[in-house]
Amino acid sequence: MLANELAMNESHDPSLKSWVQSANLEQCDFPIQNLPFGVFRIADGKSHDFCGGVAIGDQILDLAAACKSGLFSGVAASAAQAAALNQMNTFMALGQPAWHALRKAISQILRDGAPKRDKARACLVPMKRVEMGLPARVGNYTDFYASVYHATNVGKLFRPDAPLLPNYKHIPIGYHGRASSVRASGQVVKRPSGQLMPPGALAPTLGASQRLDYELEMGVWIGPGNVLGEPIRIHEAEDHIFGLCLLNDWSARDIQGWEYQPLGPFLSKNFLTSISPWIVTLEALAPFRVPFALRPEDDPAPLPYLIDEYQTTKGGFDITLEGFIQTEKMREQHVAPQQLSHTSLKHLYWTPAQLVTHHSVGGCNLESGDLLGTGTTSGPEADGMGCLLEITDGGKKSIGLPNAETRTFLQNGDSLSIKGYCEAEGARRIGFGECVGVVVG
Amino acid sequence: MLANELAMNESHDPSLKSWVQSANLEQCDFPIQNLPFGVFRIADGKSHDFCGGVAIGDQILDLAAACKSGLFSGVAASAAQAAALNQMNTFMALGQPAWHALRKAISQILRDGAPKRDKARACLVPMKRVEMGLPARVGNYTDFYASVYHATNVGKLFRPDAPLLPNYKHIPIGYHGRASSVRASGQVVKRPSGQLMPPGALAPTLGASQRLDYELEMGVWIGPGNVLGEPIRIHEAEDHIFGLCLLNDWSARDIQGWEYQPLGPFLSKNFLTSISPWIVTLEALAPFRVPFALRPEDDPAPLPYLIDEYQTTKGGFDITLEGFIQTEKMREQHVAPQQLSHTSLKHLYWTPAQLVTHHSVGGCNLESGDLLGTGTTSGPEADGMGCLLEITDGGKKSIGLPNAETRTFLQNGDSLSIKGYCEAEGARRIGFGECVGVVVG
Repeated sequence: MLANELAMNESHDPSLKSWVQSANLEQCDFPIQNLPFGVFRIADGKSHDFCGGVAIGDQILDLAAACKSGLFSGVAASAAQAAALNQMNTFMALGQPAWHALRKAISQILRDGAPKRDKARACLVPMKRVEMGLPARVGNYTDFYASVYHATNVGKLFRPDAPLLPNYKHIPIGYHGRASSVRASGQVVKRPSGQLMPPGALAPTLGASQRLDYELEMGVWIGPGNVLGEPIRIHEAEDHIFGLCLLNDWSARDIQGWEYQPLGPFLSKNFLTSISPWIVTLEALAPFRVPFALRPEDDPAPLPYLIDEYQTTKGGFDITLEGFIQTEKMREQHVAPQQLSHTSLKHLYWTPAQLVTHHSVGGCNLESGDLLGTGTTSGPEADGMGCLLEITDGGKKSIGLPNAETRTFLQNGDSLSIKGYCEAEGARRIGFGECVGVVVG
Repeated sequence: MLANELAMNESHDPSLKSWVQSANLEQCDFPIQNLPFGVFRIADGKSHDFCGGVAIGDQILDLAAACKSGLFSGVAASAAQAAALNQMNTFMALGQPAWHALRKAISQILRDGAPKRDKARACLVPMKRVEMGLPARVGNYTDFYASVYHATNVGKLFRPDAPLLPNYKHIPIGYHGRASSVRASGQVVKRPSGQLMPPGALAPTLGASQRLDYELEMGVWIGPGNVLGEPIRIHEAEDHIFGLCLLNDWSARDIQGWEYQPLGPFLSKNFLTSISPWIVTLEALAPFRVPFALRPEDDPAPLPYLIDEYQTTKGGFDITLEGFIQTEKMREQHVAPQQLSHTSLKHLYWTPAQLVTHHSVGGCNLESGDLLGTGTTSGPEADGMGCLLEITDGGKKSIGLPNAETRTFLQNGDSLSIKGYCEAEGARRIGFGECVGVVVG
């Protein structure tokens, strides 16, 4: 932990304003205290390359243009060169000192009264003119199962008397996901076909999934990796995390139910994983750190390799997460999206750092640009369930929508969006933007 | 299927000899009928880049040098340019016509009496002077479970009365593996640590795995990929397979037993996967194609998306596979390796083409250089078990070695090697080389 750089510093000062006026609006996700990284290209039908940028209000600071304009010097300049590429992997590999130097420089350039603002203004691109890309080449994608509420709710469907398996409270459960089908928000969700074996059927048939679901998760982006055979210790784990994004682990529950024994989910998950295109850095999240989730007294303590004082006092993140549905008919009728999920990342049973350390404890090497999903982030409250499987009690209870439609699982034309934001006393609100997908048949 | 190119042609003629004399030795894995692809670099302590090559006898045809010498023309020349790179991904993406053109050209250059042999001789590098690399950037690694004998033997350990789960004979079971830790043969096997929960223990502890195992598998390398959302049909599946290699899916059984419920194996597998460095192409394997594994009459027929006439008559591969152990003491005493496994890929319940088609049926996109493991290739015979978990009946029966040592699972200093070769009437024997690793503590 380079705690001096990640701790609260003047870049978090809630009174800071930007000369980009849209960044100062109260509900803006991207004020000057946020400064998330992503890759974009102008959406004018020509085949531009993607390029790295930083979100500020409703604008993007084009890092390639900013480098050319000489806006940066020293460590920040070389960091900006890496961040300006069409994929963030190289920048992610540089580590916290480089990330911090660039954040500091950008914060100074974009704040009210900055001397270089005319030069910087020429490097702004309006968000409405761009298409966002996948921020990095995802070499490896791993999905965890870190919410005890989700594990319990789902476990109840199969084992009402013993929903949690004996290992759950000792070991962060995870599995390898599919890297090739991770896409930035906006990718259409093509309903997958697969082997279906409904209750009572004598043999499976091939057909389109009838139980298509979302999973409200967050993604953890790996910064510097580790060498094969050399585990990442818990007190260093956050040095290996570049930042967080929203993640929707689209899931076909009927395909999953038939295929997952004994080796886990496969085609039920690998047809698409959507992420929000902006990565909010750990430094931007410093004001929203909270203690490791409170556990019931008789829960086992984590094994020593998974815990240190920092994780106990600051390992968690209080990030409000919301999921919304809007059917095709609701869009036609101009009915606003209906909220399905409302929870916080702080409820996770395992922190992102614990996931990193556990992932590598046997020697597995993480690489820059690897993506870890937290697993569905359900919380303890009644409205805190992060997927339809939980909300509808396995498809038994349908959800009423404001225009009198109902849903158990997703139908063609449905739009499902995830949002995330952080609020804390003495801090400026920051947000993650959106992760959205429309289901097509 | 471009069957005209994959079918037997004059490059398979068993009477063909090479002017590289070592290729004509009877037990040589790499005669002129084989011509497998790999990447190598001179092992002289300097930092050379890897470069593509083709194995012939105990030599490698350096494809970069061969391109410079003007040994190729037309389609073969552009294919050779791609195959000469430090990773085969670009060459793999070119597809069967390019692969075939290059194979034909190389076969003509290397055969007895070839006019260009003096030029070609200057492009040979002795195998003993090189280090072999990972032949491609593995974007995604998937491991299957395609041997019904393995699934049954392992299932018996957990469920003696019903070893096979109800889905097994309908659906090719698979799961996503870890791409970052795939390494070429020779990589040391660092015994992984992880959470261990031995029978009778009240809580898990962190410790080094005591039940380290090998899994005798083959790897299937993906050639051209598919677009997200567009499945690969069974009759096109082999167009997407570049070739096969040996694969050892090192497994920590104690870590696996504690972690794998409910989402499958994770750290028990991701510390290392070893592969043989030479990829034998599908065209080289044409003489060794056999019918889809014979199934008992009351087994269900595969669903229509998984079967066509070609798969029924020629979907299988008769590749003999062997596993050998040699302990540190055996090496000191000059005791030859002891055979542990002897089986054939033809026993698989699902063919490689069926694995490809099933993988993509929900829309998952495969990419050039993706690697599919078949799963442990155990066969029906008593000596046909492909891992120690099966051979020792879950660690209950120890194996006697020729020098009076015994083993249940792998000990530090043990060397485990896998070999593979094909023999058929009217065909020249070809081999896969070796996939070996030594366990260290």
